[in-house]
Amino acid sequence: MSTTLLKARRGETTPQMEQVAASEKFSPDLLRERIALGQIVIPNNHRRACKAVGIGKGLRTKVNASIGTSPDLIDLKMEIEKAQIAERFGADTLMELSTGGDLRLIRRTILNTVQLPVGSVPLYQSAVEAIEQSDSVLGLNADLIFKVIEEQLEDGISFMAVHCGINLLTLERLQKQGYRHGGVVSRGGASMLAWMLHHQKENPLYEQFDRVVDLFKRYDAVLSLGNGLRAGAIHDASDRAQIQELILNIELAESARQMGVQTMVEGPGHIPIDEIEANVVLQKKMSHEAPFYMLGPITTDIAPGYDHITAAIGAAMAAAYGTDFICYVTPAEHLALPYPDDVKTGVISARIAAHVGDMIKLKDRKQDWEMAQARHNLDWERQFSLAIDPETARRFHTERMPKDAKTCTMCGSHCALKVVNEHLGMAMAACA
Amino acid sequence: MSTTLLKARRGETTPQMEQVAASEKFSPDLLRERIALGQIVIPNNHRRACKAVGIGKGLRTKVNASIGTSPDLIDLKMEIEKAQIAERFGADTLMELSTGGDLRLIRRTILNTVQLPVGSVPLYQSAVEAIEQSDSVLGLNADLIFKVIEEQLEDGISFMAVHCGINLLTLERLQKQGYRHGGVVSRGGASMLAWMLHHQKENPLYEQFDRVVDLFKRYDAVLSLGNGLRAGAIHDASDRAQIQELILNIELAESARQMGVQTMVEGPGHIPIDEIEANVVLQKKMSHEAPFYMLGPITTDIAPGYDHITAAIGAAMAAAYGTDFICYVTPAEHLALPYPDDVKTGVISARIAAHVGDMIKLKDRKQDWEMAQARHNLDWERQFSLAIDPETARRFHTERMPKDAKTCTMCGSHCALKVVNEHLGMAMAACA
Repeated sequence: MSTTLLKARRGETTPQMEQVAASEKFSPDLLRERIALGQIVIPNNHRRACKAVGIGKGLRTKVNASIGTSPDLIDLKMEIEKAQIAERFGADTLMELSTGGDLRLIRRTILNTVQLPVGSVPLYQSAVEAIEQSDSVLGLNADLIFKVIEEQLEDGISFMAVHCGINLLTLERLQKQGYRHGGVVSRGGASMLAWMLHHQKENPLYEQFDRVVDLFKRYDAVLSLGNGLRAGAIHDASDRAQIQELILNIELAESARQMGVQTMVEGPGHIPIDEIEANVVLQKKMSHEAPFYMLGPITTDIAPGYDHITAAIGAAMAAAYGTDFICYVTPAEHLALPYPDDVKTGVISARIAAHVGDMIKLKDRKQDWEMAQARHNLDWERQFSLAIDPETARRFHTERMPKDAKTCTMCGSHCALKVVNEHLGMAMAACA
Repeated sequence: MSTTLLKARRGETTPQMEQVAASEKFSPDLLRERIALGQIVIPNNHRRACKAVGIGKGLRTKVNASIGTSPDLIDLKMEIEKAQIAERFGADTLMELSTGGDLRLIRRTILNTVQLPVGSVPLYQSAVEAIEQSDSVLGLNADLIFKVIEEQLEDGISFMAVHCGINLLTLERLQKQGYRHGGVVSRGGASMLAWMLHHQKENPLYEQFDRVVDLFKRYDAVLSLGNGLRAGAIHDASDRAQIQELILNIELAESARQMGVQTMVEGPGHIPIDEIEANVVLQKKMSHEAPFYMLGPITTDIAPGYDHITAAIGAAMAAAYGTDFICYVTPAEHLALPYPDDVKTGVISARIAAHVGDMIKLKDRKQDWEMAQARHNLDWERQFSLAIDPETARRFHTERMPKDAKTCTMCGSHCALKVVNEHLGMAMAACA
């Protein structure tokens, strides 16, 4: 069966390409060319129709919301609610990362709940099954991992983070480096590393990479080269182990593309803000502009409970520098499994960051101009309708209703805009 | 009476300088030299003892929390609560900006509530009194404004934003520019502009600037040159009117310093993130590194209800580039007067941003390293104690208690750090 990438190379514009081009006001031809070059991907799966979402060069920065159970918190109803909230508040994709309960039932339920492309991290389920079978992640093996990947693709997963680049070469770099302040914080990466060290064997996902690619090709899903050694602490950002894995992931992404599979490359993690540009530049340059999927980046370690904010700072800058896809971070990060309210906060915060970045990357400022105009005109209904979260904006304003409905309780009758409108009659200029 | 600045010039180290130097682990001599050069200020007032807080070159980025009533919401008890919350959650200064109720009673009550330096914007009270007396801000006059400034200094205000740079020259620039997408959003600026246009007269705060300086000198308070034309919309950022006012404010700050008064210069406002560096560089260069006090900066107009986040993005970058002092923004910004909960969220968000910036500006990363170590060791109590808001971090973790107390409900028994600790025994490196 053919793939989106192979079709793009043959000059064929698929319905999904047309949908993405229309929703982004983008040239369908340029979109197809960039897919052919591996600079844009559209998550897909022959087994499940989903919303067409384009990720990559020249497109709006996309936001992923990750949900899923853990061994401690298994509540399918809550997972359904989280998925619905993520979709309702504007996530572009969903990752279903459950590690507790009936994993297949949960995944299939979520896939039936949303229209969004749904992603996964197959090493999570693999580790769960290894522990079930042998009481330890050391019981992982190639057949188990490949069985899980195929099962998840069969269920309709459109993109997967697969930890292929955390191999013996990367492990050697980590050992020669001799430190990791925050250890290894990727669950997939930690399991794989433990397994490799114990068995003194190469990562099967690296060793049998063609087998990985063949599976993705069969379903036309997007292979996201996962970040097993991403920094989990500011002091580990941009270290040798992380960059080594990035190089290998980019190599593998290129090789998968040559075989007809769409790929993305993942990035960290925790990064101080003066290293964000370097991380983006490096990934973009070495990969010839493959789509870059960043987790966070979280810009300080000291704000648990507020990591949606530490990540919004990083994601805004990353998006401005060229990152294409950001994974949301919720207020519960580093502390607990997110609840539905945390999912909402995470999605909105990441969407704000993506937009702040897109104002630079894409010069996308029309909504900001419309909001400025609505504010200038003291048109509150228009302000609410333009707000990223109209419900919350309206609640703040109406629960503290001003005496003069044209103003708000911040300044009331001393409203600067009212003074200006009454006394200055400042002209509004047309939007550039 | 002498001032902090004059003493610094004479080589005299005041007790406040010693306190600031001690709390910042800074050389008292260098601190005094920088105060003498006008690169650092310590808000002060001969009439009121307050916490010694240094603002400027080489010091930690400081956070201001603004509180105050409006004509619509007058609740002294709530203002006291807001002041206490701001102090408790780590604001470095407080601005008391009431425009409703018995302004002097409110101000004096707040000054007795906190140890922090308290600031004000005298044009607010002036406009309120003008409206009381003549039913319009057009009733403003020089004597009224100077009476208010003196009254506020007399009460113990340590720093004031005074709108001196919004003069006829600035107004001409605004008129020749011919547009303002978001109008004029500074309440002080709007009132003054309306008055100048109506009366066709120069701003008395510019015309009689020596009289302003004399008052500040008498009390040794810090004069902050206010930003009456700051952009209130992304599309107005860095426009000619704003930069013209900045030039004049810097000129005035220099002149006040020559007369022995400590000064700061204020900046915007709403700024897209690719213009933040230019705003900071310009202020720092033209002023020979006078302390820069930025409001926000807010990085998109479309997220009312979440402007603590849009401002955290901007403030983190501004602090990294060299801004010394940031004014918090609460979730209620653009919508309503903040409630106590909003004050807490605003203070914490701004403190996160200041720290993210200080990681770059001051290489201040020790707490981040300690947190990485606490996380690596799965030492939860230590994580809470290192958190910027220990209470919130603890609440997230304990309201969703994991089965294994060493982990959290995010991953439970699949905790990556647990796997790493058990299988890898990765060594921690010493902090640089």
